[in-house]
Amino acid sequence: MEEDEHVEPWVEIESMVQSGDVDQLDEFMTNLPPGENARALSRLGDEEQAEILGLLPQKDAAALLEELPEPQSVGILEHLSPDQAAAIVSEAPSNQQANFLGAMGSEQAEAILDRMTPEDAEDVRQLVQYASDTAGGLMVTECLVFDKDLRVGDVIDDLRENAEKYASFNVQYAYIVSPEDGLVGVLRFRDLLLSSRQRPIVSIMIAEPVSVHHDVGLDKLHLTLERYPLFGLPVTDDNNRLLGVVHRSNVQKAVQEQANRSLLRFAGIVGGEEFRSMPLRLRATRRLSWLSINIFLNLLAASVIAYHQDTLAAVISLAVFLPIISDMSGCSGNQAVAVSMRELVLGLIKPYELLRVIGKEASVGLINGTVLGAIIGGVAYIWKGNPVLGLVVGAALAINTLLAVCLGGAIPLLLRKLRQDPALASGPILTTLTDMCGFFLVLSFASAALPWISTP
Amino acid sequence: MEEDEHVEPWVEIESMVQSGDVDQLDEFMTNLPPGENARALSRLGDEEQAEILGLLPQKDAAALLEELPEPQSVGILEHLSPDQAAAIVSEAPSNQQANFLGAMGSEQAEAILDRMTPEDAEDVRQLVQYASDTAGGLMVTECLVFDKDLRVGDVIDDLRENAEKYASFNVQYAYIVSPEDGLVGVLRFRDLLLSSRQRPIVSIMIAEPVSVHHDVGLDKLHLTLERYPLFGLPVTDDNNRLLGVVHRSNVQKAVQEQANRSLLRFAGIVGGEEFRSMPLRLRATRRLSWLSINIFLNLLAASVIAYHQDTLAAVISLAVFLPIISDMSGCSGNQAVAVSMRELVLGLIKPYELLRVIGKEASVGLINGTVLGAIIGGVAYIWKGNPVLGLVVGAALAINTLLAVCLGGAIPLLLRKLRQDPALASGPILTTLTDMCGFFLVLSFASAALPWISTP
Repeated sequence: MEEDEHVEPWVEIESMVQSGDVDQLDEFMTNLPPGENARALSRLGDEEQAEILGLLPQKDAAALLEELPEPQSVGILEHLSPDQAAAIVSEAPSNQQANFLGAMGSEQAEAILDRMTPEDAEDVRQLVQYASDTAGGLMVTECLVFDKDLRVGDVIDDLRENAEKYASFNVQYAYIVSPEDGLVGVLRFRDLLLSSRQRPIVSIMIAEPVSVHHDVGLDKLHLTLERYPLFGLPVTDDNNRLLGVVHRSNVQKAVQEQANRSLLRFAGIVGGEEFRSMPLRLRATRRLSWLSINIFLNLLAASVIAYHQDTLAAVISLAVFLPIISDMSGCSGNQAVAVSMRELVLGLIKPYELLRVIGKEASVGLINGTVLGAIIGGVAYIWKGNPVLGLVVGAALAINTLLAVCLGGAIPLLLRKLRQDPALASGPILTTLTDMCGFFLVLSFASAALPWISTP
Repeated sequence: MEEDEHVEPWVEIESMVQSGDVDQLDEFMTNLPPGENARALSRLGDEEQAEILGLLPQKDAAALLEELPEPQSVGILEHLSPDQAAAIVSEAPSNQQANFLGAMGSEQAEAILDRMTPEDAEDVRQLVQYASDTAGGLMVTECLVFDKDLRVGDVIDDLRENAEKYASFNVQYAYIVSPEDGLVGVLRFRDLLLSSRQRPIVSIMIAEPVSVHHDVGLDKLHLTLERYPLFGLPVTDDNNRLLGVVHRSNVQKAVQEQANRSLLRFAGIVGGEEFRSMPLRLRATRRLSWLSINIFLNLLAASVIAYHQDTLAAVISLAVFLPIISDMSGCSGNQAVAVSMRELVLGLIKPYELLRVIGKEASVGLINGTVLGAIIGGVAYIWKGNPVLGLVVGAALAINTLLAVCLGGAIPLLLRKLRQDPALASGPILTTLTDMCGFFLVLSFASAALPWISTP
């Protein structure tokens, strides 16, 4: 709108689709600055996006899908014919295939699997079964595996023969296995380069390599890669057989997605990413499902006010302070929630260390509660010239701040213990509790001090 | 507390330090599960943590520091003698050195630099000058560089000679440069492996490689690596001279830290990470600095209520709905804020696309505002048996929800235009505005409808 002279890329893309100039379209999209493809496509309808993907060479279409945010890619795949979708998906790495198909409707996924090669389809069926944030769910099956009895020359010959196939593997190590013991070692390309052809590979491999079981979770994977400077971790089953490799980049991507998901859930976006290119009905109902729970929690908290209406009628100026106490306690508590969530992710606290967290929060709460209470009490005093009113409001906020930070620190630990997502539930639970306590404190202090603060 | 039979690792560490058994300590810490070192050390005092690091072999101490969250590492380094700190820092990769020293007090950093080798110190001084979230700030200077006139055999011989030195580089490519043209190509180890010694490296290198200028920002780096499946991007200056390499893993780490920072700021933790092992004064004052701004914004918003006290006195039950309207509008608006922040990071919207965002939000706001307004209006009607009261409260929430989502969607774009951090400022700005509007709407609707809703 504001930049009239600038032609937005989706306008150009549309005209190339209309003129049917596929080569020009392919070149245009390949040369758009990184990130612009996602933006351009998101401005077009689902059908239109699918049409464009269908026009591009399959390899380029697959690369494009990998570049887009996942919900967008899946949306496009769902609008392609199963034949086209299968051809494009087959060009992606195995874990990406599993992600795409796992996020789709099961009928559509089956239709695509039926059209892939039986081996690829089998791989994907296996991968889809692992939970998404585990080593099994994050690994790729594309990796180089050699028998432990080979020599350096054999490996180099195999690499040379299959150079084409391996080129897309993006691997830095080869894994050495034996039929009896499963994974026995890791071979670095670098060492291969510097050794004579006759050496047995077992003599240059790194024996007893770091590996992870397929059900190891994301937090643990992340911490393991923080410790060891590896590009990938081999993933094994109960019998130490090699299943695949988790690449560092996939773990980091998953951790990053987790942090984003936390941010979104913390802000009440539930049920996956939301982009404004998604259908209105989906966006509105997803947001509403969370809001409508929240409104009933709010009504619950506000019922405390209704219960004390007489006090409020006697001291109407209290009504000014109720929303402030509610908001400030929520803010103080949310700070503590965020710190607990970070410490949990980093492994700096365990869910059972509840008392330590509450102790640490209580001291912050005492200080901040005193300061905030003094501010609000001072304002109330000056405004109405009534020191008792100041005391009532200030004391209520001070005590409620203390409560809020202790609750805020504790709730994520409790939720984690119950295997719930702290990012999602901490906020609503916290604010409902702190609202109820805050309203109760102000109004019951006020009713006790009524003779000194009521307006005639 | 709850697990009495379990000896926490910091207790064991303390006893090993006291008995002075360094080998045992080193082994114990190396074998703690990933993540446990950070937790164990965070339970000890700064002096004690520094003492432990000083006892360990420098290489292991450096590896340990890399494993810890950065604020914790920097805290420990600051408590070491400059000699010890310099010895340990020298073992870390160059960008890590720059991060550590950049986060320290400048006197302490200088003292450490003085004790490093002149070349290392010079590298770090260079690196510190680049802004942290740019290619320059994220790159390492450790990379393999060869002149374009060499042959495959020359490169292999050099790799063999310097195997020791290169082992710590963790690189997958060598970069090919010419004195005149700077960076001209990239050589993959794999291709080196498969070629004869006599071939000139220019014939097997990838010419015109993807590279980035040192001032390219994190978002762009991230999008570039989404497109190209590379382990690292070469970083160049204005004259195409090679300065270093940004590894994919460092970019992903930075993106992840950015997402965490957003979450923390969104929740009002400002000024860097907060861990509960940090000093109380720092934790309390950092949180308070944000809260004390917020409390004045709250007072500003609540002044709208004070202004309409007479209306409120006439219809005291409105006081029950004020905090609900405030909280619900804040929640609706924050959902829109989160979606805008995500879309900005992913490049799906540009700051100038304000009208598109407001349009998309308005339709969600109309639907959700109607539903939420109906709920709250219905409750008010049933509670007081007064349909006009229901209408007043419901209409106010409906309109305010529409306003809140439009503001919530727009504010991050405006802040980005002004080069401010949306995660930090969006929340307080949003809630202040929506509170003011919300209070104003309810109370002025109520005052217009006073004859029908006032309690006698």
